[in-house]
Amino acid sequence: MNFSDSITVLAPATVANVVCGFDVLGFALNEPNDTMHLRLTEQPGVVIINEDDYDLPTEPTRNVAGAALLALLRAVPEAVGVEVRINKTIKPGSGIGSSAASAAGAVVGANRLLGERFSKAELVDFAMYGEEVASGVRHADNIAPGIYGGVTLIRATTPLPDIVPLAAPPLFVTVVHPQIEIKTSHARQILKEHVPLKDAIKQWGNVAGLVAGLLQSDYDLIGRSLEDVIIEPVRSILIPGFAEVKARSREAGALGGGISGSGPSLFMLSREEATAQAVEVVMREVYTSLGLDHHTYLTTINQQGCRIS
Amino acid sequence: MNFSDSITVLAPATVANVVCGFDVLGFALNEPNDTMHLRLTEQPGVVIINEDDYDLPTEPTRNVAGAALLALLRAVPEAVGVEVRINKTIKPGSGIGSSAASAAGAVVGANRLLGERFSKAELVDFAMYGEEVASGVRHADNIAPGIYGGVTLIRATTPLPDIVPLAAPPLFVTVVHPQIEIKTSHARQILKEHVPLKDAIKQWGNVAGLVAGLLQSDYDLIGRSLEDVIIEPVRSILIPGFAEVKARSREAGALGGGISGSGPSLFMLSREEATAQAVEVVMREVYTSLGLDHHTYLTTINQQGCRIS
Repeated sequence: MNFSDSITVLAPATVANVVCGFDVLGFALNEPNDTMHLRLTEQPGVVIINEDDYDLPTEPTRNVAGAALLALLRAVPEAVGVEVRINKTIKPGSGIGSSAASAAGAVVGANRLLGERFSKAELVDFAMYGEEVASGVRHADNIAPGIYGGVTLIRATTPLPDIVPLAAPPLFVTVVHPQIEIKTSHARQILKEHVPLKDAIKQWGNVAGLVAGLLQSDYDLIGRSLEDVIIEPVRSILIPGFAEVKARSREAGALGGGISGSGPSLFMLSREEATAQAVEVVMREVYTSLGLDHHTYLTTINQQGCRIS
Repeated sequence: MNFSDSITVLAPATVANVVCGFDVLGFALNEPNDTMHLRLTEQPGVVIINEDDYDLPTEPTRNVAGAALLALLRAVPEAVGVEVRINKTIKPGSGIGSSAASAAGAVVGANRLLGERFSKAELVDFAMYGEEVASGVRHADNIAPGIYGGVTLIRATTPLPDIVPLAAPPLFVTVVHPQIEIKTSHARQILKEHVPLKDAIKQWGNVAGLVAGLLQSDYDLIGRSLEDVIIEPVRSILIPGFAEVKARSREAGALGGGISGSGPSLFMLSREEATAQAVEVVMREVYTSLGLDHHTYLTTINQQGCRIS
């Protein structure tokens, strides 16, 4: 064990669900990123030091990064601890994987300090304990792309995460975060527990189409498949400006898009950078006209997940 | 118009649903095939001549091939008719796309006689009128692979069929047809109109996994994804021997499989021919021990759909 090394991890924002892939698809963004500094400690356990202004809990069992690290340390036989200093840029509650970035960054960093002893699938499993702290659900659709990079399919999460990286053609991503608050837990509660079979069939036709479109670099198919008949009609009600952003972004040439995770952020995919810029203008106009504070990102898909420097 | 030419079409059996892709996935088989002879007639309309012993209706509006041909002829401005002589080898009600073979073969043949004026997607649309006669539902999951060949995704059927051919690695297919009768319409009626969202999520994770497995030639992923938590638990009750065939085929090395269409035929996919042969032995043993007449096929995926000679 080397207790003097300190490493820095850039943990990316991520877009979960990807319209038709509720709970099974996600991708990582090149911007924004959280910055985390980790080092091993002789004292077992986890020490969380928040260096940002978000006033997140520092008690490890109540902190997303802490819970993920405690899960990882349970699989480490040596007496060792981890100290992590966290500078979050990804605003909690924005819908672009803020909690997943903390969890993924923490376990990726600790794994490097411990000599890369765990597989990516094991890291996803540890990090899901962090998501459980944040939302009550051990979901992996932000965690997996944060750790694997690119677009990932989470085919199943039990007994172990079955993560399938999906090679995707170049895509530009425009994200808008309107500054309203939606709790992931609330966004889950409003979903119906049962869905019409005919809608489920449409959904799995679209998710199959999206996977085929990504793997075959068929942009038109990607666009046609970005349709959600189950989750979006319920959740979009919570997001002012949703319908207008979506319609006007398509008019501007976007392939399609929708709610990022459980919102309130919205994302749009474009084939060309100029289109993604036009979409950013649309997003700003919609939220300016609604008088809502907002922040936009124009970025691309992060192919490597958390980066260590 | 050339009213003297006659052509022969081999219309393949097909496997719809492919376990996790209810109503959206299907593939074509190299065996068995129906044989159909078509020629144009000066007399408008459709003439059906059944040359087999299945006693199917000959009135065009009540015959699967007839309804499909009438739909096609409505899109033909010239005064012309089609006569089709049908020799079915694919037993009606077997669950391997008997009605779809009649519908697909008819429109593929007529299109050739008319100078290939319709696209494959248009032919699917015409042929679906045939499926409507057979089962009351305009579904395309047997029609599409019968016309395109290979494995096909039917992303959507309205407003027009959106068919996505999926390149698949070499696969051996073992099929058993236990000689019991299941009506497609009954097999649909017993399905629940609503499904738990959590099951739907598992299903679209699996269908996404199957598409990725096929396109990436990942046999293990194909095998893991061949899981159906929605349709199979309901329909398998109608098929004696189902659980035993499935379990023992997996033990014999099959990647996986399940009900072909709405049954009663079962199919299993294998990577190696020897495995597919072992699966055929298993299938025969199970139905022999149950005292049920049965027929097996050991074949591969038909890559071209209906063949014209």
